[in-house]
Order: sequence, then C-alpha cells, then structure tokens
Amino acid sequence: MILIVMKYTSEKSIQILERTPLVLKTLLDGLEEDWITNNEGPDTFSPYDIIGHLIHGEKTDWRPRAEMIMHFGLSKTFIPYDRFAQYEESRGKSLQQLLTEFTSLRQVNMEWFRGLRLNEGELDKQGNHPGLGQVTLRQLLATWVVHDLTHIAQVGRVMAKQYKEEIGPWSEYFRILHF
Amino acid sequence: MILIVMKYTSEKSIQILERTPLVLKTLLDGLEEDWITNNEGPDTFSPYDIIGHLIHGEKTDWRPRAEMIMHFGLSKTFIPYDRFAQYEESRGKSLQQLLTEFTSLRQVNMEWFRGLRLNEGELDKQGNHPGLGQVTLRQLLATWVVHDLTHIAQVGRVMAKQYKEEIGPWSEYFRILHF
Repeated sequence: MILIVMKYTSEKSIQILERTPLVLKTLLDGLEEDWITNNEGPDTFSPYDIIGHLIHGEKTDWRPRAEMIMHFGLSKTFIPYDRFAQYEESRGKSLQQLLTEFTSLRQVNMEWFRGLRLNEGELDKQGNHPGLGQVTLRQLLATWVVHDLTHIAQVGRVMAKQYKEEIGPWSEYFRILHF
Repeated sequence: MILIVMKYTSEKSIQILERTPLVLKTLLDGLEEDWITNNEGPDTFSPYDIIGHLIHGEKTDWRPRAEMIMHFGLSKTFIPYDRFAQYEESRGKSLQQLLTEFTSLRQVNMEWFRGLRLNEGELDKQGNHPGLGQVTLRQLLATWVVHDLTHIAQVGRVMAKQYKEEIGPWSEYFRILHF
C-alpha cells in the first residue's frame, strides 16, 4: 500500500484529541510504580512526567497560542514552551490525580475547539513561533494532534525499554528499543 | 533520575498484557478510515494491520512457544513466525471485528498464563528459536510484553506521521516522525 498523507480537518483532529486522556488512563492507571516512573535515562520523561507535560500544554500551549493567532496574528509572538515545567507542577501529585486533571482540562479545551468551527481562511491565519518563525493556525492544531500521538508512542516505548534486558537476544528484533 | 531496568515478574507482565486490547480499542475504535488504514510507506503496517498481527501472535506465537518450552525444552524448535500472515487472515474483516477477536483471544491466553504460576526455575527453562538460538521462557514472556508495548508505540507513530506535512516547520521538533 502507498503512503497517503492526510489533509488536516478539525473533525479528524478532534477524534484523536478527545480520546487521548482515556487512552493514557487505560494504558497507565493501576500499574505498579516501576512502569510509571522509570524513564529512558538522564533527562528523559517517564510516563508520569509525560502526563504532567500534557497538562502543562493544555494550560499554556495549544489553546493560548491558537487564541493568540486568532486575536493578534503576527503582531505577537508565542511564549516559549517550558518542556520541564511538570517537574515542579506535578510534585506531590499521584498519577491518578494527574490523569484526572488532564482529562478535565482537555474536555474544556475540546468544548472550546468544537465551538470554533474554523473555516479554511481562519486556519490559514498566521502567528509567530519564537523558534520556528511564521506558522499557521492549521499547523498549530495539527501539531497538537501529533504531539498527543507521539507522546502515546513515547509512553509505549519507555515502558517497553524497562524489559530491554529481560528479553535477551530478542532485543535485536526491536529497532525501537534502540531509539 | 537514573534509568532503573526492571526485573521480569509475571505479575508486572500480566498488568500490561491484560490491558492491551482495551488500550488499542480506546485508541482506534470509531476513527475515520484514514487513521486506521494508512501506514508509513511500502511494506509497513497500518494500525489495522497491527491488530491482525497481534491476533496472529495470540494464535501461533506466544502461548504455543511457551508450551513448547515447557513440554519439549531444547528438543524442538519454534515454528518461524509469519510477520505478514494478517494480510491474508484479516481480509474482509472490519477493525471492530479484529479488536473483538484480539480481545477474546488475549483473554483466554491470560487465563492460561495466570494459571501457570511459574517459579524461577520454570522461567529459566530453555527453548530453541529458529533465528536466535537458545532462549528462556522468561525471555519469551518478557518479549510478549515488549511486543505489545512497541506495537502500541508503533500505532501512535504511524498515526502521527499522517499529519507530518500538515504540521509544517514543527516536524523538526519531532524526531520520532523521522524514525
């Protein structure tokens, strides 16, 4: 089969965004601590860190940046995203608390997103990214989806790596364990 | 935080294996066709293909190989795994049918696995892999878990790649899209 790259639509995006909290809850809730808090080595995220990172994105990244594009276009620049904010913000919270927090923040943002009913002209509107320069609202919203999916992928990979030694010679069959 | 590699336990393994069908159902059920059937290019799997591949594994790989180790040790060699069997076996089935089939096959295999109550000596028992040579039952069972998790990761990555063009300059921030 040939690779067919998808065109952005808000419907296809919402289909993913609205389910991410439940996907992560289904994958992580109730697991033993090791599965949740182990990572891939220094300066990498554990599944626990990733949920905090997604929470921070709901509060400070996707919606605020979309609103900045809609209201100010190129006359303002996005606030740089803090990729490590969750180390402070998640402190003292259980995974279950974080999953609940992410679920309700995402739910509110989905109500907002569904209410926008953006047309193609609005999706073409541009904003300023501090590192990437001019970006469109469409690109920002597509990135929100890609960000969810790549973090789901990351959670799977981080967890898989915890058994890297235990699978012995099989590890050569799993390219992803060496990523 | 330092990377701490986990030791195999059957309890930790079952925690993952028993939830995989619901994780994949939550991630995939009800999505538009593009999300399900697009892949990463020639000779790569779509999410739809991956569910068929997991079904084939439940039927022909993990449990039959574990039973071969338990009953025959090194005196037999595993039947090579057909990584492409699902192209034939999934034909004509909907994603929902495949998810249901995977769920029930896995459920039966989990009842079997829980009933084994393997001790360390049994986990050390060896079998012959046609490509890797001598492997232990522990390694086989750990690989079953890693195989689930890496395919969950793969589903996330394959889906993320569908929006690779639509995120524009952001793609440079996502190493995983170039995997």
